Amino acid sequence: MNQIVLFGSGNVASHLYKAFSASDQAEVIQVFARDTTKADFISEKTELVSDYDELKPADLYLLAVSDDGIAQIASELKDSKILIAHTSGSTDLSVLENFGNHGVFYPLQTFSKSRNLDYSDIPFCLEANSEENLEQLKTFAKFISSSINEVDSEQRRALHLSAVFVNNFSNHMFALGSDICQYNGLNYKILQPLIKETVLKLNDLPPKEAQTGPAIRNDQETIQKHINSLTGNQRLVYQTLTDSIQKFHGKKL
Amino acid sequence: MNQIVLFGSGNVASHLYKAFSASDQAEVIQVFARDTTKADFISEKTELVSDYDELKPADLYLLAVSDDGIAQIASELKDSKILIAHTSGSTDLSVLENFGNHGVFYPLQTFSKSRNLDYSDIPFCLEANSEENLEQLKTFAKFISSSINEVDSEQRRALHLSAVFVNNFSNHMFALGSDICQYNGLNYKILQPLIKETVLKLNDLPPKEAQTGPAIRNDQETIQKHINSLTGNQRLVYQTLTDSIQKFHGKKL
Repeated sequence: MNQIVLFGSGNVASHLYKAFSASDQAEVIQVFARDTTKADFISEKTELVSDYDELKPADLYLLAVSDDGIAQIASELKDSKILIAHTSGSTDLSVLENFGNHGVFYPLQTFSKSRNLDYSDIPFCLEANSEENLEQLKTFAKFISSSINEVDSEQRRALHLSAVFVNNFSNHMFALGSDICQYNGLNYKILQPLIKETVLKLNDLPPKEAQTGPAIRNDQETIQKHINSLTGNQRLVYQTLTDSIQKFHGKKL
Repeated sequence: MNQIVLFGSGNVASHLYKAFSASDQAEVIQVFARDTTKADFISEKTELVSDYDELKPADLYLLAVSDDGIAQIASELKDSKILIAHTSGSTDLSVLENFGNHGVFYPLQTFSKSRNLDYSDIPFCLEANSEENLEQLKTFAKFISSSINEVDSEQRRALHLSAVFVNNFSNHMFALGSDICQYNGLNYKILQPLIKETVLKLNDLPPKEAQTGPAIRNDQETIQKHINSLTGNQRLVYQTLTDSIQKFHGKKL
């Protein structure tokens, strides 16, 4: 059995714990959490520790903690030949360079404790300081997922930035749209089939080709009506994104 | 059998044709198209016409045409007591006021000819010049969908504007994210599980509560790194939306 010590008690840690617990080839033998009360997701068979001296040897030390947390743990842990990897999209591999065997184990997904996820299609983006360590991280990732990707630190930073656009910013678009509905006495849930289809369409078409609406049609009459009906921040977002769509599609210099 | 003459040969017309054809309570007896070659979606049993003199009486004349097309057809058709309705999100009910029985039959969805849609959950947004006509439109909408909504012209305009945010603008976020991936040698499909989960999350949480990322955390270090790695239009979009998220969530004056 491949043994893991999992560091962290937040969203990412809770899901990695769940995912590895469902595999019969890996076992999380310990969870390390500074605040043990937050690690409410672990079962009784897993030891919960908050002291570095209590850490047991394992095949993988997996740091599913904040970016600041990674540096902190790296400064406290001694190198013991155990493979150590962090799960951050925006932190360089080199933050762990004091360890003989180190790598990155980044799941490209948004995690909330309350959501049930299908782990098998989550892309795991892996990087390591040697071929051998990379292979070992692949072995661990395959226990959970079928999407295994070798991604260097620069590419991983690009993925993390892409995720801000496709996840954070698109969610904000859903929030602004819902707000307009609610302001006009409409339940925002009326938008859900449209939101669903917006995404399902991407199974057939790349997003650039799926673009529709007044901006890409350069329908100035509708654009002006919309801008006139908006104020403040919503108006600025509308103008900036209409402009961006037109530039992206070569409709504007 | 409830008889319909459907005007139009574009995306909306093709899907309404398909949806009514699947119902055993309604029949599209004619499709009217200025350019009949575009109406490639109709079966042999439906008559295709392009001359106003060839129009047959029916229970509903349904104008699934562009906003300009609605006004054009309205000026050519004579009032014959037949209920006439358009399907536009941004056109007022009053464009059809010369007809004794008129209304709006707006499906809140994005339509491409190539996509297979589940019509039963598409919200139909209905408005009419009398209670009786509204009831008749409801009858027709129920042949297709289980989401029937009374929506006045102002609310419909708000829905159409919301749709620009949740569909057009979020799709543009997917396009910008994909572009960043491709620029860094990554297949954009690696983003699809994240995009899917961004939307599935909305089954559990309203979008305002589902917001995550550096903007809402006010993680200035990550925000600055991201801004520095972007140029031109992408940088402007990043700044505008980060600002908008912070204002929306009361993080910024």
